[in-house]
Amino acid sequence: MVTIYVAHNVPPFLPRHVLRDLRALWAAEEAGVPYEIHWLDSIGGDTKAAAYLSVHPFGIVPALSDGDFKLFESGAIVGYLCDKTGKCIPAPRTKERALYDQWCFATLNTVEPALLQLFIASVIAKDAAWAKERAPQLRDLSAARLAVLDAHLANRAYLLGQDFSGADVLMGQVLNFIVDSTLIDGAPHVKAYQTRVRSRPGYVRAAAVQAAGPKSAAAAAR
Amino acid sequence: MVTIYVAHNVPPFLPRHVLRDLRALWAAEEAGVPYEIHWLDSIGGDTKAAAYLSVHPFGIVPALSDGDFKLFESGAIVGYLCDKTGKCIPAPRTKERALYDQWCFATLNTVEPALLQLFIASVIAKDAAWAKERAPQLRDLSAARLAVLDAHLANRAYLLGQDFSGADVLMGQVLNFIVDSTLIDGAPHVKAYQTRVRSRPGYVRAAAVQAAGPKSAAAAAR
Repeated sequence: MVTIYVAHNVPPFLPRHVLRDLRALWAAEEAGVPYEIHWLDSIGGDTKAAAYLSVHPFGIVPALSDGDFKLFESGAIVGYLCDKTGKCIPAPRTKERALYDQWCFATLNTVEPALLQLFIASVIAKDAAWAKERAPQLRDLSAARLAVLDAHLANRAYLLGQDFSGADVLMGQVLNFIVDSTLIDGAPHVKAYQTRVRSRPGYVRAAAVQAAGPKSAAAAAR
Repeated sequence: MVTIYVAHNVPPFLPRHVLRDLRALWAAEEAGVPYEIHWLDSIGGDTKAAAYLSVHPFGIVPALSDGDFKLFESGAIVGYLCDKTGKCIPAPRTKERALYDQWCFATLNTVEPALLQLFIASVIAKDAAWAKERAPQLRDLSAARLAVLDAHLANRAYLLGQDFSGADVLMGQVLNFIVDSTLIDGAPHVKAYQTRVRSRPGYVRAAAVQAAGPKSAAAAAR
């Protein structure tokens, strides 16, 4: 049985769906991999305690264990879960797999940095002088990244075409960093895509488990 | 023949080795994949011209083409090049491959954001008020990330253990964003690792090709 490490009791300014552990839960739901959850009391310090640092040395979420095997980084965890069942991921060493990798890295290394820095400047650090000056630049960069994504999604249901993949798990969650709705209003295909991926049963279940926290009957009943 | 898209004529405040196209050149050298270079005049606007945007819609470097196949994102390009020869990358669907993925994503999604934002605040935007206020926070985050990496490298030559891999190509280049030597002085195992990867013949050749630019005899002679 796979164990996914998920934070609860997070700071109140953090909407649950911006937490990256949602990616691991969502991928497990989409790939059909049974899992149990190891809940981490974030404010209580669980993510910085030795027990968790032995699983994830950077002390952030998510992480995964599968028997004695430990894995961190959401990009790697999503791929590992999808590879377990062969769902939502192209076969290894194909051009399609290279394009899957391309969109995973584009999501996490080209789109997320812009949206996350904007989230930090406009939500977490919004009262800081640096944030007020920096936020407009980050908004411009975010809009530019979303414009490219918008053109790509103009004639595709998902990042790889008509088939949902783990890359959409990553992108779908990354879009949750957007808090200014006018930003996504400027990218109508991205907005439609966001609605599409958020309406998937796998997303709905994963978000419900995450939001319910450790007392969740849904988590216990799996 | 693989074509790698590499920028030249970049702004003078950018040392060549912080450009991400170095990752693609280095991976090709390490994996033993023959390549030709398509040079892009960065200041001249080549990276934002339609011809290049048809290869890389985000208009940044690097990108790769292999016959009709086009690929962007350095993380995907490094994996694609290594998979071509099976060098510097574990076999697909193994635990070792998942750990390779883990370190690629950790490099690009956990270490690079801290170091790149610090590079922006302390080099590119160093005279801005926001940067002066923000830089110390980014330095603290960078030091924390490097401390974790330092512990990991205390008893390993490379990220995956004794064998060099594409993940080291990514991490080795990401460390080039460090301009304040006191930051890496605080992480002696990272410093030794940086010396180790930079002294590899593949790095030396790739950096020389990149630095020489389009008139490079080395590039023409390949």
